[in-house]
Amino acid sequence: MVSLSEWRERVAAALDETLGFWERHSHDPEHGGFFSCLSRDGSVYDDTKYVWMQGRQIWVYSRLYRTFPRFRRPELLEAARAAGEFLLRCARLRPGSPRVAFALSRAGTPLRLQRAPYSELFCAMGLDELGRATGEARYRAEARQWVLAVWGWVRGAPQEWGPPRVPGCPPRQSFGVPMMLLALGLQLLEGGGGDPQIEAVAEWGAQRLLLHLQRGDQVVLENVSPEGQELGGSEGRLMNPGHALEGGWLLLQFCARRGAGAPGAPGALGALGALGARAVAALVERPLQWGWDPQHGGLFAFLDADGLCPTQLEWPMKLWWPHAEAMGPILPHFPPFLPHFRPISSWSGP
Amino acid sequence: MVSLSEWRERVAAALDETLGFWERHSHDPEHGGFFSCLSRDGSVYDDTKYVWMQGRQIWVYSRLYRTFPRFRRPELLEAARAAGEFLLRCARLRPGSPRVAFALSRAGTPLRLQRAPYSELFCAMGLDELGRATGEARYRAEARQWVLAVWGWVRGAPQEWGPPRVPGCPPRQSFGVPMMLLALGLQLLEGGGGDPQIEAVAEWGAQRLLLHLQRGDQVVLENVSPEGQELGGSEGRLMNPGHALEGGWLLLQFCARRGAGAPGAPGALGALGALGARAVAALVERPLQWGWDPQHGGLFAFLDADGLCPTQLEWPMKLWWPHAEAMGPILPHFPPFLPHFRPISSWSGP
Repeated sequence: MVSLSEWRERVAAALDETLGFWERHSHDPEHGGFFSCLSRDGSVYDDTKYVWMQGRQIWVYSRLYRTFPRFRRPELLEAARAAGEFLLRCARLRPGSPRVAFALSRAGTPLRLQRAPYSELFCAMGLDELGRATGEARYRAEARQWVLAVWGWVRGAPQEWGPPRVPGCPPRQSFGVPMMLLALGLQLLEGGGGDPQIEAVAEWGAQRLLLHLQRGDQVVLENVSPEGQELGGSEGRLMNPGHALEGGWLLLQFCARRGAGAPGAPGALGALGALGARAVAALVERPLQWGWDPQHGGLFAFLDADGLCPTQLEWPMKLWWPHAEAMGPILPHFPPFLPHFRPISSWSGP
Repeated sequence: MVSLSEWRERVAAALDETLGFWERHSHDPEHGGFFSCLSRDGSVYDDTKYVWMQGRQIWVYSRLYRTFPRFRRPELLEAARAAGEFLLRCARLRPGSPRVAFALSRAGTPLRLQRAPYSELFCAMGLDELGRATGEARYRAEARQWVLAVWGWVRGAPQEWGPPRVPGCPPRQSFGVPMMLLALGLQLLEGGGGDPQIEAVAEWGAQRLLLHLQRGDQVVLENVSPEGQELGGSEGRLMNPGHALEGGWLLLQFCARRGAGAPGAPGALGALGALGARAVAALVERPLQWGWDPQHGGLFAFLDADGLCPTQLEWPMKLWWPHAEAMGPILPHFPPFLPHFRPISSWSGP
């Protein structure tokens, strides 16, 4: 049994090692931005710049610079700033449009478009944190505009290069959309307040995320109707344990933020305490049970809520990122909710 | 060592068994069309009707009815006809539009759209064969319209619900598009002639398919520029052994059709003989070498032309369909080209 303080040391060492690798191999000194297709020896096997990764790496560099004394190094901030400027210069599909490419060439030409709004949201996530680390307000203002544009689209505002509106095709809500808007709301609101529009984004994300908790909170479905009804078929039964866990720690952050200042006892949070307890049970504990491979260990990529075989070819794969999401709830962000976590030994099957 | 005649018996038995399963479990007597999400016991775990599969099953039923005495059963033809009528009634996204849904509900409501034109082409493939089996010309006329619509789109004609035209995004050609247009050209021309437009479709497909043979015919790349130049990055190096083999037997069919009546000696086909030899070497023999897993056997789903790791999660999986494509070239369609096949024992690595 490894203690939490030992885990902390392991994670710290892994962070130093990982960050060193990316600092040595991923920077593009010519155009700014980051390569992300790196071989084990660090060589770049594809110089496509994926916008998700640009935004995420800007966020990681800026957050580490801002909050960890040992990462407060100007090189890190300058690499993040060069990538932020690269995104602002190149990522938009047309000057002034909030619509962003999914992938850019090394020099910044758009290569591919994704219909879902995640590229825009990862730009916003990186730039908001870059604004915090540099103290330059313009980065945070750009981030805010992107978030509000996406929030408009997902509620029906017309968008250039949006998903096609085909007569008769029933609309559906994907788990990732409210989850990411909740994440961006929390990012933009962190340490502050008094931005009613962004508070509304976070609230909207949290409420709509709850629509994916189905069958008495026993399952978390990736796709539901916009009214929160279960859909038919394999797509309607699809579950993604990594997404559920990610939504879980985001919802706990939301509760912790709304309840900031409340005493440690869970009951004192009132409705937020109940929401936190629901997040712990339905989005953390149960996904760690139904998502876990009892034979070989690890979290499956996809599962079917009725135990049938998902249609995604990669469903039985053990991907890195769901396991990273599973570490989210143990971060020391949620002291008011710790009493809701039952000892693992007391868990039972769903 | 199993002889070819023994293989023939095995394949015949597997065909009877498979067809029986689908006849018992896949038919929808209420709306017409076929369920394709069947459990091992035959139960329907999702009643979505995928349009690719509707078209393919119509083709299989009609072709078996028309060409195999033991499958000349009215039930088979009636099931194919009911599915054809279901497609004609429901598959279009709007009445009169050639654009077709990727998936339909059991009753025929469009559920999803795919940007690529394969749904339309599988409708056309099924209906052309249904027209041959029933003798009703209207099915073949519908098929011809679909093929010509798609041929227009892929050469730049505007289409409703087409892929977005984003400024700066470089165009690319996917292997599947010319391959499928070649397949449809061959289907529509079979046993006939005198349709110059469809002859042009087949010719276009064959010529543009050859653009994917790169590096002195040593590799077959999934994505190239419309001018036939190699693209950069992982997408530009992507290879799909199953696609290469599928393109191989289609190109051999094309050569056999154009050279019909030529004597068996390969030289007598002239330029077509050279094209056939090229198809055998670059699209059959070499893909069976570079696509094969030397350790466990079987064809990989994807590979990288430089031996790097493809980015598709399923790249090392052994899917059923590439192995079925590998059986295409041994069908007795290509007597003029048999001399081009070297004994397997003489093959060497690429």
